Amino acid sequence: MEKATENGPNGAHSGRVGPTNPMVTPLLTDQYQFTMFYAYWKAGKHNERAVFDLYFRRNPFGGEYTIFAGLEECIRFISTFKFTEEEIAFVRESLPPSCEDGFFDYLREIDCSDVEVYAVSEGSVVFPKVPLLRVEGPVAVVQLLETPFLNLINYASLVATNAARHRFVAGKSKILLEFGLRRAQGPDGGIGASKYCYLGGFDATSNVAAGKLFGIPLRGTHSHAFVSSFMSPDEIIDKSLHSSDGSSICEDFVSLVQKWLSKIQWSGSSHGSFGETNQSELAAFTSYALAFPNNFLALVDTYDVIRSGIPNFCAVALALSDLGYKATGIRLDSGDLAYLSCEARKFFVAIENDFGVPGFGKTAITASNDLNEETLDALNKQGHEVDAFGIGTHLVTCFAQPALGCVFKLVEINDQPRIKLSEDVSKVSIPCKKRCFRLYGKEGYPLVDIMTGENEPSPQVGERILCRHPFNESKRAYVVPQRVEELLKCYWPGTSDKAKEDLPPLKDIRKRCMEQLEQMRPDHMRRLNPTPYKVSVSAKLYDFIHFLWLNEAPVGELQ
Amino acid sequence: MEKATENGPNGAHSGRVGPTNPMVTPLLTDQYQFTMFYAYWKAGKHNERAVFDLYFRRNPFGGEYTIFAGLEECIRFISTFKFTEEEIAFVRESLPPSCEDGFFDYLREIDCSDVEVYAVSEGSVVFPKVPLLRVEGPVAVVQLLETPFLNLINYASLVATNAARHRFVAGKSKILLEFGLRRAQGPDGGIGASKYCYLGGFDATSNVAAGKLFGIPLRGTHSHAFVSSFMSPDEIIDKSLHSSDGSSICEDFVSLVQKWLSKIQWSGSSHGSFGETNQSELAAFTSYALAFPNNFLALVDTYDVIRSGIPNFCAVALALSDLGYKATGIRLDSGDLAYLSCEARKFFVAIENDFGVPGFGKTAITASNDLNEETLDALNKQGHEVDAFGIGTHLVTCFAQPALGCVFKLVEINDQPRIKLSEDVSKVSIPCKKRCFRLYGKEGYPLVDIMTGENEPSPQVGERILCRHPFNESKRAYVVPQRVEELLKCYWPGTSDKAKEDLPPLKDIRKRCMEQLEQMRPDHMRRLNPTPYKVSVSAKLYDFIHFLWLNEAPVGELQ
Repeated sequence: MEKATENGPNGAHSGRVGPTNPMVTPLLTDQYQFTMFYAYWKAGKHNERAVFDLYFRRNPFGGEYTIFAGLEECIRFISTFKFTEEEIAFVRESLPPSCEDGFFDYLREIDCSDVEVYAVSEGSVVFPKVPLLRVEGPVAVVQLLETPFLNLINYASLVATNAARHRFVAGKSKILLEFGLRRAQGPDGGIGASKYCYLGGFDATSNVAAGKLFGIPLRGTHSHAFVSSFMSPDEIIDKSLHSSDGSSICEDFVSLVQKWLSKIQWSGSSHGSFGETNQSELAAFTSYALAFPNNFLALVDTYDVIRSGIPNFCAVALALSDLGYKATGIRLDSGDLAYLSCEARKFFVAIENDFGVPGFGKTAITASNDLNEETLDALNKQGHEVDAFGIGTHLVTCFAQPALGCVFKLVEINDQPRIKLSEDVSKVSIPCKKRCFRLYGKEGYPLVDIMTGENEPSPQVGERILCRHPFNESKRAYVVPQRVEELLKCYWPGTSDKAKEDLPPLKDIRKRCMEQLEQMRPDHMRRLNPTPYKVSVSAKLYDFIHFLWLNEAPVGELQ
Repeated sequence: MEKATENGPNGAHSGRVGPTNPMVTPLLTDQYQFTMFYAYWKAGKHNERAVFDLYFRRNPFGGEYTIFAGLEECIRFISTFKFTEEEIAFVRESLPPSCEDGFFDYLREIDCSDVEVYAVSEGSVVFPKVPLLRVEGPVAVVQLLETPFLNLINYASLVATNAARHRFVAGKSKILLEFGLRRAQGPDGGIGASKYCYLGGFDATSNVAAGKLFGIPLRGTHSHAFVSSFMSPDEIIDKSLHSSDGSSICEDFVSLVQKWLSKIQWSGSSHGSFGETNQSELAAFTSYALAFPNNFLALVDTYDVIRSGIPNFCAVALALSDLGYKATGIRLDSGDLAYLSCEARKFFVAIENDFGVPGFGKTAITASNDLNEETLDALNKQGHEVDAFGIGTHLVTCFAQPALGCVFKLVEINDQPRIKLSEDVSKVSIPCKKRCFRLYGKEGYPLVDIMTGENEPSPQVGERILCRHPFNESKRAYVVPQRVEELLKCYWPGTSDKAKEDLPPLKDIRKRCMEQLEQMRPDHMRRLNPTPYKVSVSAKLYDFIHFLWLNEAPVGELQ
């Protein structure tokens, strides 16, 4: 059997690519998956065919939508799923000594060749209760996948959603940069954040490892430490700079900068707003420009934005301009970003006018410093002149809600539908192997998602369909869809003969995400009091859920 | 030079162990570290000797203490720090094409053999502003370490602190289990959480990979899915169970369980509180007991705790008892945990009395379900009978505050002290290469941490020392220490001849953490309105800070 699996079209180890993080192994799971596995095996139940749904119960961040992400990593995980001898030895050591040898022989054999995974396309807009993944296979094997799948999807979807929400507030015209690596929850908290923030609509990251792994554009210039590592322009040794077109050389760029600094100081541009600027900062800016004359972007708040950073930047930028270079811009990392960005813009415009440097007024302003949805919104309300936002801590740690609560529930075993009850109705699971559809209305917006039993006829365009709330008897509506989209597609066919969906490159997933967000009715997307998107079940499935519920719930004895 | 480093006593690649996560490479840093590196190199400044402090500004979770963690991973990182050709090629690709070849040749050469790292011992209780790490070395190389060090320390320290806080509320007598892998921020968000929660005082984890990597005890039994995967006891095929001492065999354990269930039902223990219990649950419990007769712990809330889960558990536990086994206990995963745990305890005590099973009343009760500091505190106030808590989401994602804001600031370069100013006083950095001491009082409690200039005489026991708030002129106090502890020790001596501290095993770090927490004055530790611990500078350092501050701040022009 092992051989067949290794060579089979759907087996593991046939040149497949494993998870991005090599720490994602079959041991990255909860211990109870192994104790259960043993108990299933001991009861002879381990090969019973089970169906599990992976879904969440509530949208994060007080919103009414979620972006689904993490699928590719799940598929990469199962495509190479196999225990090593070392791992089996560890499992043996961690279980009671009474566990039988045959079990470990069996562990040695298993892989995911007999598992089927149906999933919503990565980058889709998704909603509570609707399965993101439907996983079918031998109950014990599928159980082992529960924890890694949840781990790989929960944070990915959460941070992609957070990125999409930040993009929504910032607006399409702004550049959004993910700067979170240093504050992320561990190394691949950082790498995952970079990947999934890009997916959710960010433009670039500061994280070099993520740039290399996923092809995400990189951004970065210099820090406060760079600025304060200089003492004065006197320490700059090589002061020469070629002109942009290579036709001439400026032998003393430092003096050229100094000359511009005094010109600015005595011009109208500065309105006399500064005296002597900080010399360590001036030296740092000059050095940075000498190293990157085509990419001069300066962090201007190490000492004082208005009295030192901006004038120093402008002096260097104007010196560069003399040599045919165009400075990129400034970054603000503290203080009142609305006010400072407006002051900086005024200064740039004044320089453009006073010294006749076309386009100088449009010099780019980047802002960073503990930004989040709220501060972006506040900046919009105050009015600002920021062109690009660098966002770190709040974005990558999902500060406003650092966990998404995806769960993985058994919905069928041996063709028997199963339900998990709870005193809290929102925690009752929706039983049965299901199909899921998104129904679109006349204006092209999605209207409702509907779950049906596997063997029910699919909803048809133009047909009048009764959509019922799964648990609330009185909530129901007729819908006549103009378009019907089946949500769950086969990403891992196992030994079945189903066609397998390709895993698209990250850029395509990002594009899908942007398109899906575009397509939503605006009232579902707004930050304040968004309208919940409707999620429903077919009339037939509704009846069955409630039949099963009554059947499983113990009847009390009043006394 | 590369050869010398590889063979040298402090160089890289001499049989050293790299970071736990292979994704932690020299590229796991911000792009601006490379642009700065290039600018330093271009200015001929890259080898200037710099000193950076790594510290945080505010304790997390509204508390007044923090646990320092992540040091071992930092040291493992630098011990193998070296760029591969592939990495250098990527850096080249990501920088402007104008960057000179010589720079990439230089990158090829560098490692951390010339870097020195002084740090507080891992597992220590630490406070704002006091450096956790002091890193010295060539400015450009040390800059490259900024992002990975912050990444490796921020989350580690945050989650260790969170664990310590949960332990504080739960009390020493309770068993604390970390169950967070599925909700963690990515795979090593989960693995890191397991490691550092153990460090901070947890007893075990559910995360098998972490158990294998770090030797943390593992815990786990079964899930709701296991319970609902069964239909009825009829499906159990192998019903036989040996007695505990192997002397006899029970041929039909299923009937023995059924017999006990009816006994309980008609006894006083149940107070008639249940009718027919859920048969799928009974089958699952019986099967689990057959697989693990010595470790029978049952999740009792799949259908109804009082009317089904507890009676089913007791029936199986009593059947096991007949065969000489002792059931471990139950787990509650929903509902009113205080109430349910008390009801369960009453039931167990009644069973002990009714059926004369010694110790049954003490059957362990584990509770899980979205627990955090607040819910633990509320449970304590209500009164409960829980023996062990399984804590996941809130613990591992640090839901109450998902980021710690450690920063990495240049404090000296070329023997010149440097300061970073800010309009926000709390963000002004403390300049100079410093030594840090903890001063202890008569009762053995730490009284104050004091930072001094490198060349000042160390504080002496019995000596009267003036401790000043670094930024608030009026806050100062004399202290006569009974014990003086130097906080920063050498963990990576570079080419210096300093003795190198060993990296202790995780168990010893955990022990250190427990001892340090014990040692703190209780008012610093309490959850509500804790007293801030004092952090100070010497009189000499105070004067110097303020001299430098005035010197660097630009003077405004009022108009």
